[in-house]
Amino acid sequence: MSVHLNPPNPAELFPIQGVRIGVTQANIRKANRKDLTVMLLDEGASVAGVFTQNRFCAAPVQVCREHLAPGTGIRALLINTGNANAGTGDQGLADALHTCQALAGRLGLSAQQVLPFSTGVIMEPLPVDRIEAGLEAALADARADNWLHAAEAIMTTDTVPKAFGAQVMIDGVPVSVTGISKGAGMIHPNMATLLGFMATDACISPTVMNQLVAELAQGSFNRITVDGDTSTNDSFVVIATHRAAHAPITSLSSLAGQALKTALLGVAQKLAQAIVRDGEGATKFITIVVEGGRTPTECRQVAEAVAHSPLVKTAFFASDPNLGRILAAIGYAGIADLDPKNIDLYLDDVHVATQGGRHAAYVEADGQRVMKQSDIIVRVVLGRGNASDTLWTCDLSHEYVSINADYRS
Amino acid sequence: MSVHLNPPNPAELFPIQGVRIGVTQANIRKANRKDLTVMLLDEGASVAGVFTQNRFCAAPVQVCREHLAPGTGIRALLINTGNANAGTGDQGLADALHTCQALAGRLGLSAQQVLPFSTGVIMEPLPVDRIEAGLEAALADARADNWLHAAEAIMTTDTVPKAFGAQVMIDGVPVSVTGISKGAGMIHPNMATLLGFMATDACISPTVMNQLVAELAQGSFNRITVDGDTSTNDSFVVIATHRAAHAPITSLSSLAGQALKTALLGVAQKLAQAIVRDGEGATKFITIVVEGGRTPTECRQVAEAVAHSPLVKTAFFASDPNLGRILAAIGYAGIADLDPKNIDLYLDDVHVATQGGRHAAYVEADGQRVMKQSDIIVRVVLGRGNASDTLWTCDLSHEYVSINADYRS
Repeated sequence: MSVHLNPPNPAELFPIQGVRIGVTQANIRKANRKDLTVMLLDEGASVAGVFTQNRFCAAPVQVCREHLAPGTGIRALLINTGNANAGTGDQGLADALHTCQALAGRLGLSAQQVLPFSTGVIMEPLPVDRIEAGLEAALADARADNWLHAAEAIMTTDTVPKAFGAQVMIDGVPVSVTGISKGAGMIHPNMATLLGFMATDACISPTVMNQLVAELAQGSFNRITVDGDTSTNDSFVVIATHRAAHAPITSLSSLAGQALKTALLGVAQKLAQAIVRDGEGATKFITIVVEGGRTPTECRQVAEAVAHSPLVKTAFFASDPNLGRILAAIGYAGIADLDPKNIDLYLDDVHVATQGGRHAAYVEADGQRVMKQSDIIVRVVLGRGNASDTLWTCDLSHEYVSINADYRS
Repeated sequence: MSVHLNPPNPAELFPIQGVRIGVTQANIRKANRKDLTVMLLDEGASVAGVFTQNRFCAAPVQVCREHLAPGTGIRALLINTGNANAGTGDQGLADALHTCQALAGRLGLSAQQVLPFSTGVIMEPLPVDRIEAGLEAALADARADNWLHAAEAIMTTDTVPKAFGAQVMIDGVPVSVTGISKGAGMIHPNMATLLGFMATDACISPTVMNQLVAELAQGSFNRITVDGDTSTNDSFVVIATHRAAHAPITSLSSLAGQALKTALLGVAQKLAQAIVRDGEGATKFITIVVEGGRTPTECRQVAEAVAHSPLVKTAFFASDPNLGRILAAIGYAGIADLDPKNIDLYLDDVHVATQGGRHAAYVEADGQRVMKQSDIIVRVVLGRGNASDTLWTCDLSHEYVSINADYRS
């Protein structure tokens, strides 16, 4: 049994006008692998990002937040794998800034126009010299059709690169969206991090970029969980280069705004789901839909309780329709006045529980059939309102323990 | 590597005057094992309990809450293993009540004077006939020195029985405390539940019993976590028979009250810790102490984030001093204004992290030495107040996945 990984289709990785990408081998942690990426933006691009809520956030995350604060002027992204520059204190901040300066100097920019991203080992000093030494080769490699190489160059324990794209017509003009991501757990061992980068040539008013990236994250990367751990380095960045010749989008609720957001969200969801599919040790891709709640927040609470329960996750690994575990997780999700008698539970199309117990028509063979699939939908109907929420997660396997117990040894 | 299990010492399992216990084989789920226990209380005993917060609470939990509500008159406990009577809807409630009636009828009591407890498979009908058929033999076995047999008869996937006792002098009178518990995860697969029963011959005013059981639970069973899952059936009951000839304890803050509570808490903590030591697949016993917080609640939040992190737990399993994982868990515990620079992290006596990074004097060999132990103390100092909290947990091993993935198959 293994989950479907959805590898990239090069034909849909559209070059984005105004974005050039270069990658190289800088030997940051391992030899003979691409580990350094530069993403160069033409003047005038809009950039917005969302970052980990972890208080132990990494140095590059702190620098990104500062450099994005003015709202304009970002011209380059610098991404390394092999070292997360997290848990590195003041030296880490100085190191992150130093690499920004090194790239900015070669491009005639100020350091504040560069965003740094790091993923890899935590609590080891960033090898600034090796990064600096790799910049020339990365810049020499810069071209528009390099998305797949970048997706490879940002991997850590990922088993496949993650890259998707889409096109949408706006005002009769084709607009392209391309994105890459990495991460095989919400946090990696010493290999911290979820990273996501998306670019579009759409013309979007800078004033809606922050709202756009927040809504995209909410509908994609904030809906996935592998092990419930939140990285020190999680970063998701959206770039708009304004090269497409449609009228500027000044509101996400306009027709054009909705069309663009739908295209972007589709790619963001594929990028996010690809991380779960490639989750550490994952053998199943599980969609948890919670409906009939009073608020989306309480639906999310229930979905997270189910998604994070080690007992539920091991039951999926075992293809065991052990429904009591799901009901128990719903019960301890923290909704104080939840009435079990109003709850219905479905595995795909199979109605398994109702009125506080097993559904009269349920037979274990039906549950077993669904549990054996590599893609499973768990649907919980709370029966107390009209709100809903969705999470994507994976199972918990022997391989997860092996990867995380053995990684450093 | 394996954790020390602290098996019972029969010499410290003091008979409690006014409590008789009988066990038998009722073939509830498996043949040839003790699975039914009656605990008979002389008239006048005080009984109080705390129960799972899970909204999907089992039928016996609902019945216990109702029967305890009047505050007096409980004369018998009826405990079965093999079936949890959870997720069984209205029929489950009727079944639980039926078994209370069956026992009450044989003892000349009302059903309201019996407390029922069930642990085992979820969502299967309680085999009421087999329980009723076993009552005669259980009653015939009733005697004061039967605590060890009861500890065995309430086991599910536990690998050892859990029973401890203590004596304390109050007003020059020896007072005895004996308790038993079961559970090898906060919830078991289909074998739900943590159960804890303690009895003392102390003379305690009924008015302080609820406060006593709440404080004991808070200091013991509420401080343990194996996998973060909360059972449908968790129950903890304290019985006082008032047979010891000291002056009645009317306040827990009196000298006598403090002495008694200390003795009870010591036993409750051993019972709780024994559950973690026997945790599913556990190879390490880990004490997580969080100090220097503004409130005990925020200290608990941090301790839970560390204790529940699969990445931290697998690092303990691997004896890998992978400190970034602990720092990351502290960082995502949800304290919005936590300053990483004020945090110190210790493994036993080894100072591993300070000021947002590795401690200058820390060398990995020191961390490695502590991580190889079977008992480990993780101490987190938040540096923002004087509150503290403590949790006990275990590691996450291959064996945990095996037990929970393979249990029903």
